[in-house]
Amino acid sequence: MERFALDPRLAADTEWVTDWALCTVRLMNDARFPWVVLIPRRPHVRELHDLGHGESLVLLQELQRVSKGFQRIFEPDKINIGALGNIVAQFHIHVVARRKDDVVWPGPVWGKAGREPYSEQARQTMIETLVTGL
Amino acid sequence: MERFALDPRLAADTEWVTDWALCTVRLMNDARFPWVVLIPRRPHVRELHDLGHGESLVLLQELQRVSKGFQRIFEPDKINIGALGNIVAQFHIHVVARRKDDVVWPGPVWGKAGREPYSEQARQTMIETLVTGL
Repeated sequence: MERFALDPRLAADTEWVTDWALCTVRLMNDARFPWVVLIPRRPHVRELHDLGHGESLVLLQELQRVSKGFQRIFEPDKINIGALGNIVAQFHIHVVARRKDDVVWPGPVWGKAGREPYSEQARQTMIETLVTGL
Repeated sequence: MERFALDPRLAADTEWVTDWALCTVRLMNDARFPWVVLIPRRPHVRELHDLGHGESLVLLQELQRVSKGFQRIFEPDKINIGALGNIVAQFHIHVVARRKDDVVWPGPVWGKAGREPYSEQARQTMIETLVTGL
């Protein structure tokens, strides 16, 4: 059975938070928004319908876990969920906590320049918050 | 029990295609991309985690039905799925068939001006394609 390997562009843009039953959970290195990416640890998945029935149910549970957790931890005005993959085809889902006073509201966070990398300390604090809170 | 009412901005931007068990399926009035919006016919749903367990399973099935159907009908390079809701908070999910030669590739379709409304005839043809093919 072929092994899952994380796309190197996803690896470069994000930091590992934790692994759940299906997905690896990674923090987007952009301090402007609480933003994680879920990537099912399965090779050759490009689209939602490439996941098997059982896997897609687990994906849904893990997505809802992030969505509920973001609501509880960050009290955002809206949660944005997106599976795009036009640049990195490996299937991955973004979950972003948005606020009405964030820098690109009400636009999407995707397709824009201007990421602000975390400081080392702020990134560790955010990862601990996510590990504890999700 | 309170009734579901479609948000008027969603109603204005889209045309009814069909109703499934949970969602009403509507065509975005933008001829640049095959683009539908699924809206669960439940009042007061803003976030994915507001849906009950059974409802979220049906949502997943209906999303996969669109995703598979788009693959079969349009043979896109990538399918984009997004639940944003920064402008219209009523929970709705976009599914868009993307091509490498489309006008905003590889950027997202959201947050950009430039929609191209369908002609009456092209819209009817697309709706028939979707009703038959999904």
